[in-house]
Amino acid sequence: MFGRADVLEAHERVRETSRHTPLSYSYTYSEMTGADVHLKLENFQRTGAFKIRGATNRIATLSDAEKAAGVVTASAGNHAQGVALAATRAGVDSKIVMPENAPIAKVKATQSYGAEVVLHGADYAEAAEHAHELEREEGRTYLHAFDDEDVMAGQGTIGLEILDDCPEVDTVVVPIGGGGLIAGIAVAIKESHPDVRVIGVQAEGASSLVPSLEKGERVTIDGVDTVADGIATRSVGSKTFAVIEEYVDEVVTVPDSETAMAVVHLLERSKTLVEGAGAVPLAALLFDHFAYDEGETIVPVVSGGNIDLNTLTTVIVRGLVETGRYLKIRTVLKDRPGALEDLLGILTAYRANIFAIQHDRTSRDIGMSDTEVEIDLETRGLEHVEEVIEAMEADGYAVEVIV
Amino acid sequence: MFGRADVLEAHERVRETSRHTPLSYSYTYSEMTGADVHLKLENFQRTGAFKIRGATNRIATLSDAEKAAGVVTASAGNHAQGVALAATRAGVDSKIVMPENAPIAKVKATQSYGAEVVLHGADYAEAAEHAHELEREEGRTYLHAFDDEDVMAGQGTIGLEILDDCPEVDTVVVPIGGGGLIAGIAVAIKESHPDVRVIGVQAEGASSLVPSLEKGERVTIDGVDTVADGIATRSVGSKTFAVIEEYVDEVVTVPDSETAMAVVHLLERSKTLVEGAGAVPLAALLFDHFAYDEGETIVPVVSGGNIDLNTLTTVIVRGLVETGRYLKIRTVLKDRPGALEDLLGILTAYRANIFAIQHDRTSRDIGMSDTEVEIDLETRGLEHVEEVIEAMEADGYAVEVIV
Repeated sequence: MFGRADVLEAHERVRETSRHTPLSYSYTYSEMTGADVHLKLENFQRTGAFKIRGATNRIATLSDAEKAAGVVTASAGNHAQGVALAATRAGVDSKIVMPENAPIAKVKATQSYGAEVVLHGADYAEAAEHAHELEREEGRTYLHAFDDEDVMAGQGTIGLEILDDCPEVDTVVVPIGGGGLIAGIAVAIKESHPDVRVIGVQAEGASSLVPSLEKGERVTIDGVDTVADGIATRSVGSKTFAVIEEYVDEVVTVPDSETAMAVVHLLERSKTLVEGAGAVPLAALLFDHFAYDEGETIVPVVSGGNIDLNTLTTVIVRGLVETGRYLKIRTVLKDRPGALEDLLGILTAYRANIFAIQHDRTSRDIGMSDTEVEIDLETRGLEHVEEVIEAMEADGYAVEVIV
Repeated sequence: MFGRADVLEAHERVRETSRHTPLSYSYTYSEMTGADVHLKLENFQRTGAFKIRGATNRIATLSDAEKAAGVVTASAGNHAQGVALAATRAGVDSKIVMPENAPIAKVKATQSYGAEVVLHGADYAEAAEHAHELEREEGRTYLHAFDDEDVMAGQGTIGLEILDDCPEVDTVVVPIGGGGLIAGIAVAIKESHPDVRVIGVQAEGASSLVPSLEKGERVTIDGVDTVADGIATRSVGSKTFAVIEEYVDEVVTVPDSETAMAVVHLLERSKTLVEGAGAVPLAALLFDHFAYDEGETIVPVVSGGNIDLNTLTTVIVRGLVETGRYLKIRTVLKDRPGALEDLLGILTAYRANIFAIQHDRTSRDIGMSDTEVEIDLETRGLEHVEEVIEAMEADGYAVEVIV
């Protein structure tokens, strides 16, 4: 039966290839919450995410013949890079199938770790189908991203590191996509330390687990919609679900708005880049999705940092908007000299810095003699946003908040 | 005379308030350069930059009467936050004067460290004048940001930490604004380890030091223009200049384009947020602004991570453009059904992902029956950019590259 002994064995196997990542005490989040917060910074893992641990352990269990035949998988995410580097380090040939529209940065990163990338299919399902064809045709071993005990055991080594580096830990908070990470960590911790809480976090837009736990069986949701693409799965695995049911204390969900704010906090305050999936545990903590005591020692697992930089810029703006530090509004001016200046006078009086202005006289929704203006502003917080809007409205402007 | 003994004394004084920051070996940059690269991550310092070291040491040397009267300074940057926290930790009252247009995030951060922020004046010069008024009127001690031996000695503790953590160091690379950081580090290192090279880096748009060293006296430049706002000074200090002349081996400059690429590398590869000033040493290394041997142990000092997030998004786009991963072009279509689709067919064939398209029929520069289109694309590198543009031109499109 799958258990802590498997994780201990995995620990011996993965320590050469993967890093023992830092556990970093955070003044900032401890002060914000009253808890004692230590971040497990798995975004500093090789390949930028925890997946290399599971892949390394799985590959180590292959027979010599299997190793000679190589491995194959489908992924456009962290699993791709984890398998690529783990295979290369073990001297095993790897093919990774990605959908044709996969982000270029992911393709290049995966190639740079030594894998052959095969672009195939319009989406993940088609890529996975092709990967299974390669499994059959070329005799390669297919490496599942999460629903595999060797993979779970590899990810569980994070739990051992947390116990080693922070023996006083009370609560570990872990993101859940397919469930491999939390299953491994829960087994690693709960069998020896049953009083340590293990809390799982899903994105609201990809939350199959809460209904699954209610029903007592795996539920597959129709679609996913979240900025946390690393955990955007329609269901957890069957093996991972069994472990989660047995060991995980609580599962909560967070909306993307809070995830974006957590990403922004981690950048601004902790100076560290975290992807959406890696930020959901901190979001769950900061926005009170679970209860904790004053002074409780809490470890959010920051699972990865592989966020596309174009996505990042979108997430930053979203995070700034949510905290009242960015405001985009639309209003209508009389089309006469000085009209824009009058409006800007209000903004200056309220110290709202202007990033951008768009003037448009051709919009169809407004009178022929009026002109529409869109303004991007830097603001000081949610109260300041209210003040600025009230001041404009008091002066007769109809203000439409765009973001 | 100012020397290593002052830095050793400072070390005792600052260790309670400031962090001994990590020295982190980088596989990525070692592989890229052939050198052995360790980053001194001073962006993980309290307040997000090294300035707290110098401020703490300076405040520790105040008499009890001076401490009781409080301190004052002018800064809209890292010095403000460093002084604020250093004073609060020492139980000393602090006032920080910032120009009225100071970024909101900086004001809030400085207040959060316990200082009273006074917004005054249109620019730094006016803010500094007001700070000197407060010095006279309220009997406060004015804390200079760099041209002060106690401040230099405090910053020099970084040099001691580097020698402790990396005794095999061959070369240390340090950003230069006013020169306090490099003066302190050079004194700390050179008196005991004269063979370790200390290399200074300025932004091309704020480089007063190269002409100063040529002339043998301090030169003040007319203006500054750089994304590295933390080192955007018109001259170095007189005390710092004397130390730099004596101890610094070489001073080089880097353009903003390279600084932006270094910021992007540090984010994507190292998962760490660094401001422009903190990225210039890595830029100087990656873009070969100084000579080094295979296997040489090089420590770029990553001096700070306090970059405004709106600035960051601009820097990211700049970094992506410079590496051929983002392309904004303008071209003209015949204004007939299908014209845009024809063009998009080329882009699809070359796998250039489209971020944004702007269509405009009202531009004055083109024929009445034509329509202008602006397209933002994700590309795969500089070669791919060439291919896409050549393919469009081969099909008869006039392509104007905007960024």
